[in-house]
Amino acid sequence: MKAVLLAAGKGERLHPITETRPKPLVPILDKPLLLWHVENLQRVADELYVVVRSQDKEMVSSLLNGYNVHVIEQKDGIGGTATAFSSLPTMEDFILVYGDVFYNPSLLQKLANFDNAIVGKEVNNPSEFGVLSINDSFLLSIIEKPENPPSRLINAGIYKLSKQIFYYVDKISPSSRGEMEFTDVVNTAVKDGLKMEVIKYDDFWIDIGKPWHVIEANRLALERIETRIDGEIENNVIIKGKVVIEKGAVVKSGTYIEGPVYIGKNSVIGPHSYLREGTVMGSGTKAGASVEIKGSVIMEGTKVPHLSYVGDSVICEDVNLGAGTLIANLRFDENDVKMSIKGKMETSGRKKLGTIIGGHARTGINVTILPGVKIGSYARIYPGAIVNRDVQKGEFFKPWP
Amino acid sequence: MKAVLLAAGKGERLHPITETRPKPLVPILDKPLLLWHVENLQRVADELYVVVRSQDKEMVSSLLNGYNVHVIEQKDGIGGTATAFSSLPTMEDFILVYGDVFYNPSLLQKLANFDNAIVGKEVNNPSEFGVLSINDSFLLSIIEKPENPPSRLINAGIYKLSKQIFYYVDKISPSSRGEMEFTDVVNTAVKDGLKMEVIKYDDFWIDIGKPWHVIEANRLALERIETRIDGEIENNVIIKGKVVIEKGAVVKSGTYIEGPVYIGKNSVIGPHSYLREGTVMGSGTKAGASVEIKGSVIMEGTKVPHLSYVGDSVICEDVNLGAGTLIANLRFDENDVKMSIKGKMETSGRKKLGTIIGGHARTGINVTILPGVKIGSYARIYPGAIVNRDVQKGEFFKPWP
Amino acid sequence: MKAVLLAAGKGERLHPITETRPKPLVPILDKPLLLWHVENLQRVADELYVVVRSQDKEMVSSLLNGYNVHVIEQKDGIGGTATAFSSLPTMEDFILVYGDVFYNPSLLQKLANFDNAIVGKEVNNPSEFGVLSINDSFLLSIIEKPENPPSRLINAGIYKLSKQIFYYVDKISPSSRGEMEFTDVVNTAVKDGLKMEVIKYDDFWIDIGKPWHVIEANRLALERIETRIDGEIENNVIIKGKVVIEKGAVVKSGTYIEGPVYIGKNSVIGPHSYLREGTVMGSGTKAGASVEIKGSVIMEGTKVPHLSYVGDSVICEDVNLGAGTLIANLRFDENDVKMSIKGKMETSGRKKLGTIIGGHARTGINVTILPGVKIGSYARIYPGAIVNRDVQKGEFFKPWP
Repeated sequence: MKAVLLAAGKGERLHPITETRPKPLVPILDKPLLLWHVENLQRVADELYVVVRSQDKEMVSSLLNGYNVHVIEQKDGIGGTATAFSSLPTMEDFILVYGDVFYNPSLLQKLANFDNAIVGKEVNNPSEFGVLSINDSFLLSIIEKPENPPSRLINAGIYKLSKQIFYYVDKISPSSRGEMEFTDVVNTAVKDGLKMEVIKYDDFWIDIGKPWHVIEANRLALERIETRIDGEIENNVIIKGKVVIEKGAVVKSGTYIEGPVYIGKNSVIGPHSYLREGTVMGSGTKAGASVEIKGSVIMEGTKVPHLSYVGDSVICEDVNLGAGTLIANLRFDENDVKMSIKGKMETSGRKKLGTIIGGHARTGINVTILPGVKIGSYARIYPGAIVNRDVQKGEFFKPWP
Repeated sequence: MKAVLLAAGKGERLHPITETRPKPLVPILDKPLLLWHVENLQRVADELYVVVRSQDKEMVSSLLNGYNVHVIEQKDGIGGTATAFSSLPTMEDFILVYGDVFYNPSLLQKLANFDNAIVGKEVNNPSEFGVLSINDSFLLSIIEKPENPPSRLINAGIYKLSKQIFYYVDKISPSSRGEMEFTDVVNTAVKDGLKMEVIKYDDFWIDIGKPWHVIEANRLALERIETRIDGEIENNVIIKGKVVIEKGAVVKSGTYIEGPVYIGKNSVIGPHSYLREGTVMGSGTKAGASVEIKGSVIMEGTKVPHLSYVGDSVICEDVNLGAGTLIANLRFDENDVKMSIKGKMETSGRKKLGTIIGGHARTGINVTILPGVKIGSYARIYPGAIVNRDVQKGEFFKPWP
Repeated sequence: MKAVLLAAGKGERLHPITETRPKPLVPILDKPLLLWHVENLQRVADELYVVVRSQDKEMVSSLLNGYNVHVIEQKDGIGGTATAFSSLPTMEDFILVYGDVFYNPSLLQKLANFDNAIVGKEVNNPSEFGVLSINDSFLLSIIEKPENPPSRLINAGIYKLSKQIFYYVDKISPSSRGEMEFTDVVNTAVKDGLKMEVIKYDDFWIDIGKPWHVIEANRLALERIETRIDGEIENNVIIKGKVVIEKGAVVKSGTYIEGPVYIGKNSVIGPHSYLREGTVMGSGTKAGASVEIKGSVIMEGTKVPHLSYVGDSVICEDVNLGAGTLIANLRFDENDVKMSIKGKMETSGRKKLGTIIGGHARTGINVTILPGVKIGSYARIYPGAIVNRDVQKGEFFKPWP
């Protein structure tokens, strides 16, 4: 069986995270989401096709060097779905997965037994997804972001498809965004009589569409780790709960860890750091003296060296936080924190949410960052500044108006 | 014998502490002053009368539920003294204590042996109190706040009285504030020939009239604790001096305590906290990572979670200090710190004094608070703000003018 | 043999360090440079002459009380060199050393064997020094700060001289600064045929001319310490590398030290301090809770009590840093840090350089100090201020314009 991964999303809603990396390279426990997909799919498929944007091809290919994967460049004007179908061998069954979802791969084994199937997941906010209209256990249609969803069961973005589906590909017109949508193919096929089983799935699942989903996807992965310590731990270190400490990492004396926590290879933690539940330190990161980090994803090479508090935040690669940089993660009114997504303020649905800082940014010492603020990649924040609005890519934010 | 406690003070000079609690509920070692009084008086009296303001009656009654105490509402226009006398049985001796004083109860046993007696305490600032004019060991008169005090011996607010005193109650006209003053009753009685012994007392005593007295009263109580540890202490905790750690409290690893320190029930201290002498943590409080607290009273439910320094301050109930909130407690010129009391700047007589923060207030991250500043209850301090003036109840203080 | 030390420099380029102490009293490992010189020279000379400024005489004499040293006041209008020659006995050989240099004294033994010799040291920036023009191993001339230096060998400021040199002293006219320059004497003598050997020296050497040289001289000394612990160390202290902890010092629990580090007598370190390589704590200093210090010289009596980061800085005597005072030591562009020297911006040649704070200064809480900024002695920095320019002696720097 084949497998195809649709990984050509632009990821603009994930800015500033995706200002410096393709969306498929968002890390979960310090490993790009794309690798999780590839490793998942290799369990059930003998050949993998990954559809990516032209500009991402080189980076993705390099990442997949050594893996048996076809990296396919999305063709201009036809979109990822059409590109995938034009590349796949037409005589075989295949599994198709959206590149943005993170899920339990044990699902795939079960899915492989069906001819045509779509995975459905119950969620609390179905209106934000494609909702499944079903009859018995069969799909009637996928309704995109309905105001009044017929159920809480949504399209998880994971399909098993037979070669029959190819018949419908040519029948579809491009959507309003000028691309063939895969859900249109499915809806057309089902309407035409193709029997598509709906597999209800109730294990972990997330669609990584907005910045805080990176925290949540990492949290899902963290909750499934088993303790493994391959790094070095000095005296007087307290570890509670489950932790992974990778090779080459050093946890210095006086550090206090409340798992689940992941510490990537060659990281330096401490002395006197306090890593709390939900923290993921990428490889080559540093959490220094009197630094507290909670519920946050710190990407590779980033340093939080002195006297900082980082809560419920994403700090991308190669960032340096000046001494005493503090991040607020709770509003005074304790309402859900809002964040600007593609220029529009959206609620995160989270009472606690800190900041999202893009790659290669630098904050000066004693910087104050308010909840829900985004700081662009390569930005510079002047020492002592109070960051109370989004900072653009490369902007130099100063404390005085 | 009966006992009466005059606890109907408004406590305006104790603002913002008394913005959210009656004056008698100011805590000493996490227990309301009123309970200290009741427990003291129960050693010598079989029946207790506590005179309170109407608006405090419910809260006081609820606190005294289970105690054998008459809670008496002060009657409008006649004041606490007249209310007390109109409620007391007239045929019995009684002990009368002002609700604002904190003292060693062993005194009461001795006092009970006299017919009529007043307790005198030598202080360095007699002009701020009622000064005792005496002849041998008998009272001549109590002179309120004299400019040139005849001695350093002042009225400690603790009396033993016989039923004879009732005779004089009706002879008194209301004072300029429209109430009968108990000292007028005493002065009239003594002038008329009543023999009132002056008991000189030289153990600890304080009149809790101004906010910093709450620090000092707690300090007096702290100096008398014996070490008792009923809470949980993790590894690598250093404890020096005397401490009380109540049940349900957890002291996390790396915490360093220099007693005398009191830690209330269900508090969480650490990791890496530094609690120094004179610190009282109320029940359900938190002192978190890299937090240092010295000579301060932190009331119930208040959180100081991250990277703060709190020195010589009072932080009332249910306050949250944002990460990195810092409190200065020393002027550059090292003069005594001043504080506004009912709108008038007064010296505290203390070289070191931080802030007084009212109940339910919130500070943002990285807030700077200057010595002697008061922050009202329910106030909000914007992240990064420099608080260099008093903040009103409910005010939202912003860093920019 | 005699020895003479020219220690009459004004040290203006070392401001603010020299605002409150004569240049010869700059400390290296908590001991004035002058004492290092005296102790070095006493190994080879039986009589010492130290030439100082009039205003420094009292302080220097008091420091040298108990040492067998002639403290000679520089005479007005003729400079240190002429003063030295007019004071020395003319019939004896002597060693002459500039008061600003710090070097390995084992050199002196070798030097003593020559009649006339000058020490040459290879450096990377010869244009900033007197460069030696030589023929075989003999000096041709010393060329002051040449644009195109003939070699990298410079005048180390250490000479062995025979009585012949006195002959040339009278032949010299004052230089443009109105004083006889010792290098003019040497150049004249050599030109006249005096044979002066050039001793190439390749051990440690530094000319302490600019503030950051104080860090570097201390670093050179630190690299040569052997571990010696005469102070008290509490439990749970981590020590790596070489340290000296003097008598009366206390290192409190949870402190983490990465040597080489020097801790002067009666200092208090910790709890939870982090002292990193290159730190010198003078006598009676304090590094408190959650304080990190790296590559810095903290002079006697100075307190860094709470939540500070101090990197690559010099903090003179009796300074108090308010809680949360943070010092930046790296520019965003990672270029070498610049500092104003006698009113002119100069590069330090250092990527990492923090601040120089003069004696008796005070910073408020939560103060932010930018790289390369100098703060004058007796200055006051208002709480919360961002110090982004030099602060004058005694100035009160406020956060608002």
